[in-house]
Amino acid sequence: MDKPQLGIIGAGQLGRMLALAAYPLGIRCHFLDTQAASPGGQLAPIITAALDDFEALRTLAERVDVLTFDIENVAVDMLQRLSRRTPVLPQPDVVAVAQDRLAEKQLFRALGIPTADFVSIDAARDLARAAAELGWPIVLKARRLGYDGRGQRIAANATELAAAWDDLKRVPAIAEAWVHFDRELSLIGARSASQGPIFYPLSENTHREGILVTSVAPYEDPELQRVAQGFVDSVMARFDYQGILTIELFQTEHGLVANEIAPRVHNSGHWTIEGAETSQFENHLRAVLDWPLGATDLRGYAGMVNFLGSMPSAREVLSIRGAHLHCYGKQARPARKVGHCTLLDEDKDRLLARLEPLRRLADEANQ
Amino acid sequence: MDKPQLGIIGAGQLGRMLALAAYPLGIRCHFLDTQAASPGGQLAPIITAALDDFEALRTLAERVDVLTFDIENVAVDMLQRLSRRTPVLPQPDVVAVAQDRLAEKQLFRALGIPTADFVSIDAARDLARAAAELGWPIVLKARRLGYDGRGQRIAANATELAAAWDDLKRVPAIAEAWVHFDRELSLIGARSASQGPIFYPLSENTHREGILVTSVAPYEDPELQRVAQGFVDSVMARFDYQGILTIELFQTEHGLVANEIAPRVHNSGHWTIEGAETSQFENHLRAVLDWPLGATDLRGYAGMVNFLGSMPSAREVLSIRGAHLHCYGKQARPARKVGHCTLLDEDKDRLLARLEPLRRLADEANQ
Repeated sequence: MDKPQLGIIGAGQLGRMLALAAYPLGIRCHFLDTQAASPGGQLAPIITAALDDFEALRTLAERVDVLTFDIENVAVDMLQRLSRRTPVLPQPDVVAVAQDRLAEKQLFRALGIPTADFVSIDAARDLARAAAELGWPIVLKARRLGYDGRGQRIAANATELAAAWDDLKRVPAIAEAWVHFDRELSLIGARSASQGPIFYPLSENTHREGILVTSVAPYEDPELQRVAQGFVDSVMARFDYQGILTIELFQTEHGLVANEIAPRVHNSGHWTIEGAETSQFENHLRAVLDWPLGATDLRGYAGMVNFLGSMPSAREVLSIRGAHLHCYGKQARPARKVGHCTLLDEDKDRLLARLEPLRRLADEANQ
Repeated sequence: MDKPQLGIIGAGQLGRMLALAAYPLGIRCHFLDTQAASPGGQLAPIITAALDDFEALRTLAERVDVLTFDIENVAVDMLQRLSRRTPVLPQPDVVAVAQDRLAEKQLFRALGIPTADFVSIDAARDLARAAAELGWPIVLKARRLGYDGRGQRIAANATELAAAWDDLKRVPAIAEAWVHFDRELSLIGARSASQGPIFYPLSENTHREGILVTSVAPYEDPELQRVAQGFVDSVMARFDYQGILTIELFQTEHGLVANEIAPRVHNSGHWTIEGAETSQFENHLRAVLDWPLGATDLRGYAGMVNFLGSMPSAREVLSIRGAHLHCYGKQARPARKVGHCTLLDEDKDRLLARLEPLRRLADEANQ
C-alpha cells in the first residue's frame, strides 16, 4: 500500500489541510460531504451526499484503503458497519464516546482523569439534583452535536437552569459544575498500530463565546506536560487508538481538569504546520496508515490566530513579516472559522507582541 | 483581487507545488497541460491540450487574473498575444531568452555577467571556428528545448564535434568552452512590480548525467552571495522582472560563471519548502500577484535529494527522522524526476551524514 487511497468523511478545513498534507506523501484523498465546493472538495474528488447517507458512505469506503473523518458527528453504527470491510480510524468506539458528553465524562472518571462534577439530565427532576450536587453556576450542555460552544448554556440559578434546558429543547443533556480555571490548554498525541504514542507540547488556547481565537505553543510546564500526556496515553490505550487524539484541558489551582476529547486533528494544533517538524495533519495520515510517525520537534514558539466571520485582506496579512496564511476557501458567515494565520518566533514575549497586529486584522474582518 | 485565479501553463511537479502553496493563500490555480492526470492536474482544474494550442491557452487566460508557467518551453509569440488581455508573468521577453541558449549567453555578455566562451553553430563551417576559438573539450548544446542535460554533447576533438552535431540533427546550436569548475551553485531571487528583489542563499548542487541529484543550502560565502545576487538583480532589472528567477552558476578559480537562467521556480530551491520562512513557490505566487514578498530567513541547513526513475517506499523514507517527503504523482520512468525529500539540521556536517541513507534509498529506487 505505497500509494494509498484515503477516504475522509467531512470536507471542512480539517479535511482540506489533511489533503494538502497528503499529496506530497503520495496519498490520494477522497471526500464525502454535502457540498461539492466545500474546503476539501476544492482540491480532491468528493462524493456529494449527506453524512448519514449509508449508500454514499459505502461507495466512498469501496474506493479507498482506509477511512477517516474530519468531524466526529458521523453515525457510529454506520462507521461500525463500514469498518467490517474498510478500516475506520480512529476507531468508531472512540467516536461514540466523543459524540456524547456523558459517555466522555464517564470515560474520564473510569480512567481516573480529573473532570468537572456532572449530573446527567434526562428529565426535569434531574435539574434539582444537579443544583443540589453541583452548586452555582452550572454549565448545561446538550449531550450530542455540540462544538465551538454550540448547545451550551450557563445558568446562575434554578430558574435559569430550567430556562436553559427549555432553550436546548429538553434534549438529553449534562449539567456540569463550573470549573474555575486559570487557563485553557490542549494536548495532541499521535499513535499508530505499531508505534507511539508521541506528543506535541501543550498549547495555550483562548476562546471567545466558545470559539477558539488563539493558540500559543509550547506552554512550558514539564509537570503539566507529563500529566496531560498521561491522560492522552490512557485514553489511547483504552481503545488501541490509531490517529491523532486531542484533549482539551483546564488548568486549575488543583491541577489539570479534562474538558473534552476530539478523535481528530484539532484547531489548537494548526500551528504545527509551520511550528513543528511534522504537522498534526501529516502525523494523522502516517498514524492511520501505520507509517512511521514523524518527529514533533519544535521550531521555536508558535502563535496562531483564527479568522472568524470573514477573511482579512491577504495583502494585509502577508505584509506582516513571517505571517503564514491559511484560507479555507469558505464563504463569509458570522462566527464561521474561515482561515487562520501562524507566526513563529524564538522569543515568546516577542511572539505575543507580533500577534497583536494579526489579532487586530482578525477583529476588523469579524465585524 | 483578494481571491485571485491563477493560470499555470504546464502541470508538472513545479505546477503541483505552486498549487499546493496557493490553496492556503486563497489562490485558485487552473492548469493547462497535455495529460489530465499530470502532477498538477491531480489537485486543481486542468484544460487538457497541447502547450501550443492557442485556443486552449486563450480559454485558460479568460478564466484567470494572471498567467504563469511551470515550464519555459512555451511559444513566446503565444504568450505575447495572451499578455494583451491577461498579465503573463514572468514576462514573455524573459522566456524568449531562457528558451534560447544563444540569446541567454548574449544577455549575460550584455550585462557583464561572466559566462563560458561560446560560438553559435548554424552551419558546418561554424564547427571549425568553434574548435579554433574554444579549445577542447567543447560542450555542444542545442539552442532550444534543452533541460536536465538533454540536447547536450561533449566533444573531445573535431570528429566528435561533427558527430555530436549530427547527433543533435544539425539544429541551431551553441558550442561552449569547457568550464573547469569547483562546484555548481544556484541562486534564486524574487521580485514583484512593487518590491524586491529579495534572495535566497546560494544552494550547492550536484548533478548526474545532467540531472540534479542533490542540493544543500546555504552555501556560505558572503562574497559569492553578493556577486550572484548582483547577477540576478541585473537580469531582473533588465526585464522589470516579476516572479521567481533562478540562475545556475559554476564556481571557478576565477570566480562565478553563469551557466543559465530559469524564469521560474527551480529544482535547486525545493529545500525552501521546509528550509526557509517562505518557500520559493509561495514567493512566486506573491510576486506575480504583487502581494508582499515573504521573508527568506533560513531554518538551519537544508539538504534535498531527488528521486529519479521511481519512488522509494514511503515507509522507508519516512522512517528517516525529519524526512520531508514530496511525491509528484508520476508514473515511474528511467531518469524521470518523480519526487524529492528534504532534511533540515542545525549542523552542516551532520546534515550531510544524514543525507546518506536518503541517497541510498534514491539510488536503490533508480535501478
